[in-house]
Amino acid sequence: MTLPEFFEPDRAAVDAALQRLLPADVTMPASIHKAMRYSVFAGGKRIRPILCIETAKIFSPQAQGAVEVGCALEFIHTYSLIHDDLPALDNDDLRRGKPTNHKVFGEAIAILAGDALLTLAFQTLAMAPVEPQRRLAVLAMIAEAAGTDRGMIGGQVADLEAEGKPGDKGMLEYIHRSKTAALIRASIVAGAIAGGAERADLGRLMSFGENIGWAFQVVDDILDVEESSEALGKTAGKDHAQKKATYPALHGLEESRDIAADLEKKALHELEFYGDRAKHLRELAQFLVARRA
Amino acid sequence: MTLPEFFEPDRAAVDAALQRLLPADVTMPASIHKAMRYSVFAGGKRIRPILCIETAKIFSPQAQGAVEVGCALEFIHTYSLIHDDLPALDNDDLRRGKPTNHKVFGEAIAILAGDALLTLAFQTLAMAPVEPQRRLAVLAMIAEAAGTDRGMIGGQVADLEAEGKPGDKGMLEYIHRSKTAALIRASIVAGAIAGGAERADLGRLMSFGENIGWAFQVVDDILDVEESSEALGKTAGKDHAQKKATYPALHGLEESRDIAADLEKKALHELEFYGDRAKHLRELAQFLVARRA
Repeated sequence: MTLPEFFEPDRAAVDAALQRLLPADVTMPASIHKAMRYSVFAGGKRIRPILCIETAKIFSPQAQGAVEVGCALEFIHTYSLIHDDLPALDNDDLRRGKPTNHKVFGEAIAILAGDALLTLAFQTLAMAPVEPQRRLAVLAMIAEAAGTDRGMIGGQVADLEAEGKPGDKGMLEYIHRSKTAALIRASIVAGAIAGGAERADLGRLMSFGENIGWAFQVVDDILDVEESSEALGKTAGKDHAQKKATYPALHGLEESRDIAADLEKKALHELEFYGDRAKHLRELAQFLVARRA
Repeated sequence: MTLPEFFEPDRAAVDAALQRLLPADVTMPASIHKAMRYSVFAGGKRIRPILCIETAKIFSPQAQGAVEVGCALEFIHTYSLIHDDLPALDNDDLRRGKPTNHKVFGEAIAILAGDALLTLAFQTLAMAPVEPQRRLAVLAMIAEAAGTDRGMIGGQVADLEAEGKPGDKGMLEYIHRSKTAALIRASIVAGAIAGGAERADLGRLMSFGENIGWAFQVVDDILDVEESSEALGKTAGKDHAQKKATYPALHGLEESRDIAADLEKKALHELEFYGDRAKHLRELAQFLVARRA
């Protein structure tokens, strides 16, 4: 599965904006800015910003403000990885093939670098070049998706608490929808709002985002079983070692693949209304399910 | 020094709003909501919200939205205490006379509860009943004050890195202005913006907030030397034990008291323009410098 052809130019635009939005690593205190930049530029694929930008483009070709909103989403995603990797949480030494933030900068700076990226995300959103009412709607919606009540943090807590317990398919669904799908859905809906979508569009794109975000995490579970640490850039087989509830563990590999395919189908169905205007978004969704890392 | 007479009614209004804004502790996952509520309702004086509300009242008697903005500031303040107390940072067991968050809920939940309060702060700001342009200005300003570049996190990092090093008065000033004064100043300026202040007002109130916030931290340093753990509700003498640079350590107790008095004088000077309208804010400022805990 090769990357869609628009992926690299989008990624370059996002990386340039991230460079601009992050304080320089000589800004005092230098250590925190170095730590923030280390994880933001550790090789992330920029999936959330690119979903945001390509969704915005359905509604306005310039995708005004979607790059900045996308960067805020990348800051939130990066902070969540830094904190998840901490010894008190998943205790991971390796992320995207590099030592995790706390391995390089120590736990104190890693905790604060995560806090700082979350703070910078909201500062970036507050100043994004999007009409004020839409900007506030984007901000409130992203905060909810990153929060505790069926949002990213809620999913992370449920995931921690499920460790070592007998698997429960309902709980597994809650975890995947909250921990991963919520922020992916928010990336898509934020792009739609910033791009000028109407209320009816938001319903369709929320459903697209929910299903593709969920599929994304099911695929992640499958790759953790099928691929090597080297291919993934993180410790493979870790879910099994930590006795985490995953789709392959509870549903088996074959059924997990079917579930992912079914979610992808539901997601793509929501895009039919947009015809060719959603061509890029469709390619992205297919890539996210077919990826091997 | 007794509390100003408006303090208790303001505090009750803030506590009622905090109750309303925090998810119920039965909302799934319950552990994170219990942990968030534990620290928010651990006996904080609500200084930042009350500064916000009383500043807003200079410009509009109803102080529209200032309670919600104040709650967001209290969430940010509380998250910073939870993370500062972690073993990897200040490693404190006691806060406001109670076990710290990680002592009760464990490190993982404490880290995530801090993250969740920071996230909820921005969600609260995004939905506060303040005119959209002013709401965005408040949000961007608070995010900056809570951030790394002369903001709260920057001060915390500089404080960590200064530990055990020979004292440096310039660095000490940077730490106090960033770690404490920035968010206190932001509480005051946020109240002013929400209340409908003009640009010229913001200059005066920024200077008031900067000086009173700085004085507040100098007084904190003095109390750490003079008062018992019991009176403070946290471990007294800890600054000295951790070889932290403080005003008493670098300037001596008497000069530190003079510095606090001088900052208070500068702060109060900025309020003269408002005459009797700033009566409450003046009383609050005097209380913050004269307090014994």
